[in-house]
Amino acid sequence: MPPDPAAGRAVHATDRAHVFHSWSAQGQIDPPAIAGAEGSSFWDYEGKRYLDFTSGLVFTNIGYAHPKVVAAIQEQAAKMCTFAPAFAIEARSEAARLIAERTPGDLDKIFFTNGGADAVEHAIRMARVHTGRPKVLSAYRSYHGGTEQAINLTGDPRRWASDTGTAGVVHFHAPHLYRTQFYAQTEEQECERALAHLEQTLVYEGPHTVAAVILETIPGTAGIMMPPPGYLAGVRALCDKYGLVFVLDEVMAGFGRTGTWFAADLYDAVPDLMTFAKGVNSGYVPLGGVAICEKIAATFENRPYPGGLTYSGHPLACGAAVATLQVMAEEGIVEHAAHLGENVIGPALRDMAARHPSIGEVRGTGVFWALDLVRDQETREPLVPYNATGADNAPMADFAAAAKRGGLWPFVNMNRTHVVPPCTITEAELKEGLTVLDEALTAADAHTTAGPGGAGA
Amino acid sequence: MPPDPAAGRAVHATDRAHVFHSWSAQGQIDPPAIAGAEGSSFWDYEGKRYLDFTSGLVFTNIGYAHPKVVAAIQEQAAKMCTFAPAFAIEARSEAARLIAERTPGDLDKIFFTNGGADAVEHAIRMARVHTGRPKVLSAYRSYHGGTEQAINLTGDPRRWASDTGTAGVVHFHAPHLYRTQFYAQTEEQECERALAHLEQTLVYEGPHTVAAVILETIPGTAGIMMPPPGYLAGVRALCDKYGLVFVLDEVMAGFGRTGTWFAADLYDAVPDLMTFAKGVNSGYVPLGGVAICEKIAATFENRPYPGGLTYSGHPLACGAAVATLQVMAEEGIVEHAAHLGENVIGPALRDMAARHPSIGEVRGTGVFWALDLVRDQETREPLVPYNATGADNAPMADFAAAAKRGGLWPFVNMNRTHVVPPCTITEAELKEGLTVLDEALTAADAHTTAGPGGAGA
Repeated sequence: MPPDPAAGRAVHATDRAHVFHSWSAQGQIDPPAIAGAEGSSFWDYEGKRYLDFTSGLVFTNIGYAHPKVVAAIQEQAAKMCTFAPAFAIEARSEAARLIAERTPGDLDKIFFTNGGADAVEHAIRMARVHTGRPKVLSAYRSYHGGTEQAINLTGDPRRWASDTGTAGVVHFHAPHLYRTQFYAQTEEQECERALAHLEQTLVYEGPHTVAAVILETIPGTAGIMMPPPGYLAGVRALCDKYGLVFVLDEVMAGFGRTGTWFAADLYDAVPDLMTFAKGVNSGYVPLGGVAICEKIAATFENRPYPGGLTYSGHPLACGAAVATLQVMAEEGIVEHAAHLGENVIGPALRDMAARHPSIGEVRGTGVFWALDLVRDQETREPLVPYNATGADNAPMADFAAAAKRGGLWPFVNMNRTHVVPPCTITEAELKEGLTVLDEALTAADAHTTAGPGGAGA
Repeated sequence: MPPDPAAGRAVHATDRAHVFHSWSAQGQIDPPAIAGAEGSSFWDYEGKRYLDFTSGLVFTNIGYAHPKVVAAIQEQAAKMCTFAPAFAIEARSEAARLIAERTPGDLDKIFFTNGGADAVEHAIRMARVHTGRPKVLSAYRSYHGGTEQAINLTGDPRRWASDTGTAGVVHFHAPHLYRTQFYAQTEEQECERALAHLEQTLVYEGPHTVAAVILETIPGTAGIMMPPPGYLAGVRALCDKYGLVFVLDEVMAGFGRTGTWFAADLYDAVPDLMTFAKGVNSGYVPLGGVAICEKIAATFENRPYPGGLTYSGHPLACGAAVATLQVMAEEGIVEHAAHLGENVIGPALRDMAARHPSIGEVRGTGVFWALDLVRDQETREPLVPYNATGADNAPMADFAAAAKRGGLWPFVNMNRTHVVPPCTITEAELKEGLTVLDEALTAADAHTTAGPGGAGA
């Protein structure tokens, strides 16, 4: 389609008149009008194209407008868009089977929700009813969703405005060597001390009052902190020791992003409950869910599970999931993501880190990478303060503006940029995007103590 | 498509192996496998057809598989399935505009969610941040959704398993003359006393600690209790007097079900926030939202709204809403619902009430009707106890089985059956279904003190 600026202005004007946007001061945003999207790119009504290094909000794992999944949605729409949750429906059954086939261990029963937040809400309810205990432990530097229970579990500033202090949530510190809370020198030490901290917290809380520990397998928006080897196995052992339910949140990390079907596949730990959304059907139709182990499913065999929703197992959403999972297998999309991480993104980002004084740490796997940006590589002072806004956030705003000028839409959160393109991005597109990223980081360098020319300049 | 029992058995077997169902003891349910659905009917793999008097879970207001909406979903899928919420997108803008055009008063800003529960979660957050107050008042005999905050607001037994007693919710009694809590003789008295009760509750709670009053405009699953004239206006006045936010939940009642666009249109009251889902696009793609008045929108003009979700304003869901709202207007679906209520359902149910000793009360409007079934018309003792299961629930199970044998899928909740077919049901289908309902009520009559033959038999 040719550029059509007038149509873009109309869409924008109607948006400003009637759409209330997430996480925003409505008078201080100016939502760009987007005309179309395909693969790893989208474009506005002026015809300006952007390479999407965000996958939307890290959910379009198969890229935009995958023709086979679009066709499957069209077919499912003709067959059956919707049906109530108390019935057996082909797309519903098949999506559950394909998900259960991929989930680790005995996570073989699938409770479907509309997205990640309600998946977390229901996982916590299952854990509380299963154990009969009230409290849940979750980590700082985490995000678990925007509904009341999920936001109380969240360990980032988005929680503050809704924090009731009464939701039965206790936050602890998960391991992250680069910004260690435990004065650790090595990953091994960080792991050991983080486990000791978690157990001590459990002891003070009274383990018999705690229903569950919930963790993002690899925390996403909070910074893509890969847990050190042994940490998740250690949490699993603590949960077993004290009879807690171990919940892994794979809403962002699941379904290929890490170069494996699930982030948990990278580690030697199987949770009791696993939440998912986003990548399960790349968000083509809203869908989330909880994968449930045998032991917890058994609790609800003769006792009603006290939860549900109108669109649980929505046929159109499940049909999209069936097609997505098939396409991901047929086209080797998970393997492609692993290849890109190992052979393209990882090496490129490490090379940039050697040249840009603003890069403090490079971390990630698959198409799930973070650059932790700093004012000073020595002190590791973040490039912008925690939860900065306005002028305090100028260094990150400068970086983002430079990337956009170069045709790259970057993922920015606090002092980090994440490299989280679709799993299907081509090597050529990826290299093009990384070149723009490289240039844009010069804007970040200008705000370091080293200055724009690199160390010592 | 011809019957295919083997396919049905496969769908059922996979369901039993992998699908975890809402609100159920998983080992005690046997989900029927459904092969297809069209208009007001669906059928199983044996070719047995049912007329759907439930609209799924009261959401398929335009019936199943409406060809124009299916076509619009297919077109939108080809154009753009999904895009992140921070952008202006044609389907998103247009859906918001069409909804705002229909909502009463100045409810002109639309925050989109995935369904009704998260719509309620966000409405409550808006009210709390807007007022700076913690508590919310909601009614017994209500349902507001399955997530933690929404289920705590709910006033039916589904709340009990998740009731933390800490969510800042206080329940009060809304008016319902047939089962009055206020010893009232007339609707006028019931209204007056219910308002006095609400104000007294507010005074004891400390109005300055209360953010909002939330009500279903006409409570749905709880029993379709039409508020008496003046009640909602009275609540509106109390909210104004004490500076509270008035939230109307139109998740079930909205978008044509009542024979008007919104149930609020039947009354002389405009809320500050209105939640919706279901009928907005007949659940063809999961969608819900909150319509926001100017005053509350202004609160978030220069202060970020502390909430959001990945699929807010989902293009495919919004595309389905645009088509649904257009089709509803073009085909006069709302007017048809009003006609059916006034000229077909109302008269037929009142005629049955004169003949069946099990019918205690008939109430409703549009395609939103309840039969309150009783053991004894004099004492009004419900046909089954509150929240009955197993043998205690036999009278209702007998009634439901009789309806299904006759090819009618009935909506059953506690001691009530609701007549809630699609707004698009034809008069011929409706009359056919009412005939089956009439016969099936004989099974309920058998459990009354009067016995099967009617009063005195």
